[in-house]
Amino acid sequence: MLSGNRPIGVFDSGVGGLTVVQKIVRLLPAERVVYFGDTARVPYGTKSPDAVRTFAAEDTAFLLRFDPSMIVIACHTVSSLAAGYLARKFPTVSFLDVVTPSAEKALSVTRTGRIGVIGTPATIASGAYQKILCADGRNIRVTAKACPLFVPLAEEGWYDHRVAREIACIYLRELRRKKIDTLILGCTHYPLLKKVIRHAAGPGVRLVDASEEVAAKVKDMLAAAGVPAGTRPSPPRIFFSDVHPHVQATVVRFLGGRKTVVRRVSLERPPAAERGERSCIG
Amino acid sequence: MLSGNRPIGVFDSGVGGLTVVQKIVRLLPAERVVYFGDTARVPYGTKSPDAVRTFAAEDTAFLLRFDPSMIVIACHTVSSLAAGYLARKFPTVSFLDVVTPSAEKALSVTRTGRIGVIGTPATIASGAYQKILCADGRNIRVTAKACPLFVPLAEEGWYDHRVAREIACIYLRELRRKKIDTLILGCTHYPLLKKVIRHAAGPGVRLVDASEEVAAKVKDMLAAAGVPAGTRPSPPRIFFSDVHPHVQATVVRFLGGRKTVVRRVSLERPPAAERGERSCIG
Repeated sequence: MLSGNRPIGVFDSGVGGLTVVQKIVRLLPAERVVYFGDTARVPYGTKSPDAVRTFAAEDTAFLLRFDPSMIVIACHTVSSLAAGYLARKFPTVSFLDVVTPSAEKALSVTRTGRIGVIGTPATIASGAYQKILCADGRNIRVTAKACPLFVPLAEEGWYDHRVAREIACIYLRELRRKKIDTLILGCTHYPLLKKVIRHAAGPGVRLVDASEEVAAKVKDMLAAAGVPAGTRPSPPRIFFSDVHPHVQATVVRFLGGRKTVVRRVSLERPPAAERGERSCIG
Repeated sequence: MLSGNRPIGVFDSGVGGLTVVQKIVRLLPAERVVYFGDTARVPYGTKSPDAVRTFAAEDTAFLLRFDPSMIVIACHTVSSLAAGYLARKFPTVSFLDVVTPSAEKALSVTRTGRIGVIGTPATIASGAYQKILCADGRNIRVTAKACPLFVPLAEEGWYDHRVAREIACIYLRELRRKKIDTLILGCTHYPLLKKVIRHAAGPGVRLVDASEEVAAKVKDMLAAAGVPAGTRPSPPRIFFSDVHPHVQATVVRFLGGRKTVVRRVSLERPPAAERGERSCIG
């Protein structure tokens, strides 16, 4: 049930989902946002479907301590493997996943119907994108490719490095051969590598980064449920299961300039959201 | 206290420590081995020291259910950041870390005293190798370099790929410039990339992979404590916190040919080691 003045909950396996927070905060500056990144267990994209579902349920349970109006699953791996599971396990929670808006955007912009999807091994193996894209009856041909080195490359900061260009060319060779006209960036880290991905995909290929669509959809869902606009703007509250310099640097990069409170929490501790260790950034 | 017919416990953040199990089983075929790989939370090398210590204590507590005669910390990140912490937290347990044997081996083979160390960001940032290598008073110059892309490259199976060669050349440039004559492979994954690392390190550089020294040291420790040789040879018992096809394939690669039982366990469950889901390999 959606209702006013409750925060919007957002979670991801790590820091990547902060790109979604950034877009929500820009579009809905009066809404409160609570974010959880499971940096102690990141990445999810190389783990089993069972592990991803277990982690996703724990992440959700953590956010529920804040009584959120809705929860955004800002992780393509969780969205692909666990969205249905979460909806069944938490039937009173309004979830928004990132796979559906990405697929809808791709379907709305493709002219040839040849759509590429790149993501983590778990996301691609799940077949979630392939299923949604082919469900609307149009003549859609999907080429999907797991790109396991993209997350570590982005983490290393080699956004426009010649090694990143070479790896992108190897991963995207098949998609280029299939003459896709639209490419879904099916992982929140991938927009950081947009430049090398765009180059490897070839000219004229439209890249779909769904974070703006997700923010727009959050706005629509709140409006559709008759939720009054937030009246108590406050900086996003950011929780991680592990905090180290790289995590802090990423928070500054994504939410820089805003005053942000970052806390470390343990999912195994009793529910006391305020107990986490605290460090201030910004 | 070491005593006979108890198993040797071995743990790592993931599958890499199986290289150590392989060497122990070869050298001590009559001993029982119990292995735990924390594949649900792998990697450790990009997490904070606090997180690594917490995970290491949980891994140790799991192995203690089997009443091991000793525990091998088959992970350079844990050995670097948490060996002292574990020794204090579990004062009755005999631990063997992988950093000390690696450093000793490097000190015994270097002729020029110029030693290189490569490892995960957490291992290198800990300064553990630098400290041990410089502790014996000799004129030792250590050059250390974190190589965060080596683990994902090894996981991708690009052992001798031109991209792996290029990344190795970038990471090892400084070590080559410093004219090291000995290079410590400070991560259990790195031996898989031995060929490209050897090429990038340049001619005449001795690579130190401590897994054989660790097995030899296990034998010495058991002998020194007067532990009778094991009399009940049985296949290693392998536990993981997450099991998926990549994990199973790695078990087959490292322990292939041997009958091995692989189980998935949750560290959060009550202590019932046999409860894990079971799948047989080999």
